[in-house]
Amino acid sequence: MDFLFNSWQLAGWASELPEHGVLARRLLDVPVALFRDAKGMLHAIHDRCPHRFAPLSMGRLEEGRLICGYHGLAFDGTGTCVDNPHGPIVSALCVTSYPVREGYKGLWVWLGDPALAQDAALPDFSFVDATPDTAFSAGYIHGEGNYQLYVDNLLDLTHVDYMHPTSLGGGSITRTKPIVEQDGDRIAIKWHPRNEVPSPIQRGLLGLTDPDARVDSRTEVYWSPPSAIALITAVAPAGAPRPDDGARAIHILTPETANTTHYFFATTRGFDVENLEVTRQIATARMEVFNTEDRPMIVAQSRLMAGQDFWAMKPVLLPIDNGAVRVRRKLEQLIAQERKAPDASLPAAPEVEATAEA
Amino acid sequence: MDFLFNSWQLAGWASELPEHGVLARRLLDVPVALFRDAKGMLHAIHDRCPHRFAPLSMGRLEEGRLICGYHGLAFDGTGTCVDNPHGPIVSALCVTSYPVREGYKGLWVWLGDPALAQDAALPDFSFVDATPDTAFSAGYIHGEGNYQLYVDNLLDLTHVDYMHPTSLGGGSITRTKPIVEQDGDRIAIKWHPRNEVPSPIQRGLLGLTDPDARVDSRTEVYWSPPSAIALITAVAPAGAPRPDDGARAIHILTPETANTTHYFFATTRGFDVENLEVTRQIATARMEVFNTEDRPMIVAQSRLMAGQDFWAMKPVLLPIDNGAVRVRRKLEQLIAQERKAPDASLPAAPEVEATAEA
Amino acid sequence: MDFLFNSWQLAGWASELPEHGVLARRLLDVPVALFRDAKGMLHAIHDRCPHRFAPLSMGRLEEGRLICGYHGLAFDGTGTCVDNPHGPIVSALCVTSYPVREGYKGLWVWLGDPALAQDAALPDFSFVDATPDTAFSAGYIHGEGNYQLYVDNLLDLTHVDYMHPTSLGGGSITRTKPIVEQDGDRIAIKWHPRNEVPSPIQRGLLGLTDPDARVDSRTEVYWSPPSAIALITAVAPAGAPRPDDGARAIHILTPETANTTHYFFATTRGFDVENLEVTRQIATARMEVFNTEDRPMIVAQSRLMAGQDFWAMKPVLLPIDNGAVRVRRKLEQLIAQERKAPDASLPAAPEVEATAEA
Repeated sequence: MDFLFNSWQLAGWASELPEHGVLARRLLDVPVALFRDAKGMLHAIHDRCPHRFAPLSMGRLEEGRLICGYHGLAFDGTGTCVDNPHGPIVSALCVTSYPVREGYKGLWVWLGDPALAQDAALPDFSFVDATPDTAFSAGYIHGEGNYQLYVDNLLDLTHVDYMHPTSLGGGSITRTKPIVEQDGDRIAIKWHPRNEVPSPIQRGLLGLTDPDARVDSRTEVYWSPPSAIALITAVAPAGAPRPDDGARAIHILTPETANTTHYFFATTRGFDVENLEVTRQIATARMEVFNTEDRPMIVAQSRLMAGQDFWAMKPVLLPIDNGAVRVRRKLEQLIAQERKAPDASLPAAPEVEATAEA
Repeated sequence: MDFLFNSWQLAGWASELPEHGVLARRLLDVPVALFRDAKGMLHAIHDRCPHRFAPLSMGRLEEGRLICGYHGLAFDGTGTCVDNPHGPIVSALCVTSYPVREGYKGLWVWLGDPALAQDAALPDFSFVDATPDTAFSAGYIHGEGNYQLYVDNLLDLTHVDYMHPTSLGGGSITRTKPIVEQDGDRIAIKWHPRNEVPSPIQRGLLGLTDPDARVDSRTEVYWSPPSAIALITAVAPAGAPRPDDGARAIHILTPETANTTHYFFATTRGFDVENLEVTRQIATARMEVFNTEDRPMIVAQSRLMAGQDFWAMKPVLLPIDNGAVRVRRKLEQLIAQERKAPDASLPAAPEVEATAEA
Repeated sequence: MDFLFNSWQLAGWASELPEHGVLARRLLDVPVALFRDAKGMLHAIHDRCPHRFAPLSMGRLEEGRLICGYHGLAFDGTGTCVDNPHGPIVSALCVTSYPVREGYKGLWVWLGDPALAQDAALPDFSFVDATPDTAFSAGYIHGEGNYQLYVDNLLDLTHVDYMHPTSLGGGSITRTKPIVEQDGDRIAIKWHPRNEVPSPIQRGLLGLTDPDARVDSRTEVYWSPPSAIALITAVAPAGAPRPDDGARAIHILTPETANTTHYFFATTRGFDVENLEVTRQIATARMEVFNTEDRPMIVAQSRLMAGQDFWAMKPVLLPIDNGAVRVRRKLEQLIAQERKAPDASLPAAPEVEATAEA
């Protein structure tokens, strides 16, 4: 179980939670039900009735309480049973409640020790809040394979030159030595190609028609544990001042189980921000690339690994893996620390305090 | 393996057996082929050729003998090989034959010790035989999940108030304390709501239009081990004499494997018995409710249990579980007795005598 | 793992390999990629990049080199990395290459010790090369079940009388005692029915209309380890000289995994060899019979065996099993020898020399 429990996991985009409904997602192999109470406050509780183990998310939400669809027990957002039509409410009639935060248009859940659930542990995606809604689009795909394979994919962006040659790749990432920086538990990998062949997408962005045109560009990934990534890209004609108003994207890989992954992504941009048609085109192209190019390769890779440990398989690592390997080592270290912690209380005990929304 | 072998298992409705064909069903994880001999007598034999393990049910029935579709060995209803086109019939060329009974329009098979297969062990559903064919309808669905989850569902009928609010539920079962009675190995649970809100179906049956109308009703389940249930319901306007001519239904849960269940059901009634349109409506509504409301919940519950033992998961039991828990304890006791029996011969030895039809 | 590694495995028909592409097949549970180099020479390499375990077959073939679709590493037919866009080519950057042969319109791979891969170990299907293309047709189906169940099926051809009564079976194979011959590791089983009822297909071949017509025929199977079979059939009116120009077919069962099988088949004939319509009819009828009659029975048999060992299940063997049992015993003996061999090097080490095409 290579999960970091003491961390914020993105459970879904806010837009995925129905207005008066429930969002059910398995996170770190734990079934979770997300819903809002009568005041609109977000809650996440264990999605399994303590009576006969029905998923509470199959019930109905009434005045902010989730009512089991099997025998009618009602739970509030703290996981406390607030109605038992069949007798007294004994103390055991409760489910675990998980700390939640809303932020960056996402719904975040903390599956680990609730005492450690601090705002500061959220990754910094404040650029989302600074972006007009018209320049924001989010998406989600579900993928077979361990989440770390999806993280690896994003940390070694030379892959765009081979996997995405008709869109994102033009060879410049491969030809550029990345800078790897570490800031506490966060790791950044930056490519700054100069006077390089543009990718098909860069060519389109700049409206280049000259086949010999060259560009300067920036591609930077910022990883926060366990699996949240900001990806910043910008491009300009070679020699021109580099623009600061490129695209800033989010890629978040939330483990569903050890072998399946929720892949959330979103894109913001600093140019042409009122143009909904551009926003739509980005969303469509992004979904096409992830669905037909990245995902099939990662699924195939996962099947060839057949459940074996990555290191036990003795991968032949290359210089391009420096960043991804540092991330794997950092994450392994954090998971090992978490397991050794003397006050570890995982999985979280059911007596969780009510949790506030961010 | 939580199966009671020494018991009659419903293998199918008589109507499911093709006139000159074979019904193949896995029962208690044993593949069984049912067919009739030339005199019309029912037989059940192990559905696996002793030669190369082909399913005999994939062969053809000829003059009451089942002929393997792979190499032509023929077996009669006692499991004896009666034709070997390739040489002598050695004693090992036989398959186990299982005691069978026909009754209540069903085909019953005894997978345990054949010496113990007595008529008296059949549950009493004699009301079926007393019902005109025009007032009888039967059905079958296949469901994921252990059969005891399906039994639990039927023994705590408060669930109709939450799972079936647009048909069977009106709240009266929840508001009525049940009577639990035990008669040897059989357990009955009875709800007798008085002056209560009618369910949508009760409202329809009585033609009630007054929203404040109240009814008296009877809902009684009779469980016989291992998993045969009679369900009797009747309704009348509040204060009127209670009718004896309500509906009597059968619900039988035959384990296919440890994690899949054959769910057989049938309904008879004592009113309007010539009306085939009513019979058809009951069959359609029943299938809709079971398929779209009960089964998805039990499948979800089974997946959340993920193969764990029910008691090991420490369910928080409620007063409404009294009947279902007594049934679980009784069944556990019977299974434990069966395993301890000094003359236990499970699985049944192949030298089984020919068995007679009920 | 009941595989014989030191043997030629048919990986596919030559027609299955795209002209400038890759054929990916799992053989003996090993992922293999087949492709041709710039000179047209065939190669087979381990289909898993040593870098991050992506299937190389998902990449692209360029100038006879297979380029990984994830990060662009290029491998030649010897499994040597010939291009690393990201740094030096270290010695570990290689994959296993397997000896290959082309022959009988098929692509053969040797998964075992490459030092033992000799032409002489190929089964003799030289009749294929002596047949005009117009009289040759090949096919492939994928089947659930261990490959030995498919081999058994072909070695006891009495099954045609029961499984294929409307095409291949007329009863004569059942009524004829076969001759079983052993020549070193090869085993032949021959049926020579005289003055017998023709099968529907024999009736059609000879244009027989008289229901009492009788025929002489020949049906001979020649098994070579581990699972390559030649099947020769011929028919003539009873008493006439037996023709030598019947049909010669190939049936090859290559294990994909322990529980799935690649079933390759091909037919040649010595009559009407220019008639493509006859060739097409044979291919269509053969696919229909294998897909709808043989395969479903073997899949069902495999499921009833549920992973148990064939002998441990104590099959009741008949005289018709003599040939198939001798084959099983011979194969078991060869596999046991292979495992005991002091110089056994299985799975093959990655330092395999480049291999030549036959």
